[in-house]
Amino acid sequence: MSEFLFEKVALIGIGLIGSSIAINIRERGLAREVAIATRREETLRRAEELRLGSSFHLDPAEAVRDADLVILCLPVGSCGAATEAMAKGLKPGAIVTDVGSVKGAIVRDVGPHLPAHVHFVPGHPIAGTEQSGPDAGFLELFENRWTILTPLPDTDEAATEALRRFWEATGAMVEVMTPEHHDMVLAIVSHVPHLIAYNIVGTAADLETVTQSEVIKFSASGFRDFTRIAASDPTMWRDIFLTNREAVLEMLSRFSEDLASLQRAIRWADGEALFDLFTRTRAIRRSIVQAGQDTEEANFGRLKPRRGDPWNEKGTTAPGE
Amino acid sequence: MSEFLFEKVALIGIGLIGSSIAINIRERGLAREVAIATRREETLRRAEELRLGSSFHLDPAEAVRDADLVILCLPVGSCGAATEAMAKGLKPGAIVTDVGSVKGAIVRDVGPHLPAHVHFVPGHPIAGTEQSGPDAGFLELFENRWTILTPLPDTDEAATEALRRFWEATGAMVEVMTPEHHDMVLAIVSHVPHLIAYNIVGTAADLETVTQSEVIKFSASGFRDFTRIAASDPTMWRDIFLTNREAVLEMLSRFSEDLASLQRAIRWADGEALFDLFTRTRAIRRSIVQAGQDTEEANFGRLKPRRGDPWNEKGTTAPGE
Repeated sequence: MSEFLFEKVALIGIGLIGSSIAINIRERGLAREVAIATRREETLRRAEELRLGSSFHLDPAEAVRDADLVILCLPVGSCGAATEAMAKGLKPGAIVTDVGSVKGAIVRDVGPHLPAHVHFVPGHPIAGTEQSGPDAGFLELFENRWTILTPLPDTDEAATEALRRFWEATGAMVEVMTPEHHDMVLAIVSHVPHLIAYNIVGTAADLETVTQSEVIKFSASGFRDFTRIAASDPTMWRDIFLTNREAVLEMLSRFSEDLASLQRAIRWADGEALFDLFTRTRAIRRSIVQAGQDTEEANFGRLKPRRGDPWNEKGTTAPGE
Repeated sequence: MSEFLFEKVALIGIGLIGSSIAINIRERGLAREVAIATRREETLRRAEELRLGSSFHLDPAEAVRDADLVILCLPVGSCGAATEAMAKGLKPGAIVTDVGSVKGAIVRDVGPHLPAHVHFVPGHPIAGTEQSGPDAGFLELFENRWTILTPLPDTDEAATEALRRFWEATGAMVEVMTPEHHDMVLAIVSHVPHLIAYNIVGTAADLETVTQSEVIKFSASGFRDFTRIAASDPTMWRDIFLTNREAVLEMLSRFSEDLASLQRAIRWADGEALFDLFTRTRAIRRSIVQAGQDTEEANFGRLKPRRGDPWNEKGTTAPGE
């Protein structure tokens, strides 16, 4: 029996998630060989400089040759075309998975391009930062985070189990659910939060009564938390909203309904309704900290930011004057 | 000339902000005496245990006696009554200020109770964490953060300058603007962001299709950032929304308008509109980091959360089954 979980892993795409997987394989010895394929030559060269794999390819069909495990590490919208391009190189019995934040669209776009002789187990590691590209990866990204696998009704159970062991070897915890349920859960815990973060940052940038420099200066009062999320990769997030449309629109309409009712409470000075909600939400924060999914340090234990450009010297005029 | 900025400072209320001011006065030697007044005896005892002041009072009028600087460190909604209660103890020439997140309401509620022989300079340090109470304070809270002062047209300039020097001695940067402008700025950088954070956490908690334990488990995908803000002090935030109603409703309606247009872009698969917004918002994050108002570390440089209760053992059933 091999000392490795897989003899050869192929990573199609090498952004934040792909490079973090590559570092995990290298540092924890999870596979003998790692083939990396990217569309852009520049990214491929960077992956090589960072020693993220053992072979480097512009043709995904070449990268997946002889691979036991193939991981699509691409924005959801690019997975269909990439699968079509690599399909002819896939070996019988190979496990094909992905890391996309939407699973229904992956089943729909990737499935039809796969030969019958491979095992398809869509997956999604719930981990990330606002940074992207092959330099953004790090070993601990998946540690103590959940990875969701969404096998289809006819997926080979042994393939799902092998993939579970792989993710667990990176420090992740694994849960299995249907693609439909995954997309509903992610819409509320991730997609709608990102959408409203993008939206509030956009609203603030467009005001005439408050200048952009004021928004930036006084951001420590709450706004800055939203800008982190609103700095996430634009292509990846465009694809998520386009491919998880139904669930996002459903959750968004609930959010708007609730917001309208809060708005009404403010207009009619219903302090009790506000106080009740604010007390309830505090308890949820506590549960998240207790579940080990966030730090209990104040302000996320933020490192003290360095003092930046002194705004006083930038010629901004005192507002309100 | 005294070695202190003020001979005696009185702090009315000793929560996160009050205790952080007290620690600054003590550690940086900003005043000879610090009198602390609270309404609850238990809080007062705790402040004494923490050595936050030199005298401790349940009667605010007693605390402010002979004080050169009086700082109301209370939720906005409590400042009017506290001022009424302390007014008779105020010495001629004393500077009275506050730390509330709404300034129009402070001018309206506090101003009328003040004798003509004191200087009233409303103020607001833009700093805080999601934690509250006398134990939450720390020395560095105001460092490299802005404090906004909103003197009235007839406020003595020397009083404003003395208060500016006090805040600068805590490490803060100071800016002066009108109360009206302050309330508009804060509505967009702080009040509406808090409101939508409270709202999304409430929406998520109320779903039937996604369980609360799933929301907590998978919160690292974006949601957890919102729960930090939604864990802020309920009384303080109720008061903010009730007292800054006009500006909050104005900013909220802009937010909702923009959100409706994003919703439309998703429904009609307008990927370009989404991509454009997501690119624009990324630039704002960069400006905030450059201005020294947040860390550039991924995930806020979060300390690695400890592994909490293993959810698997909590008897939660696999969702989607």
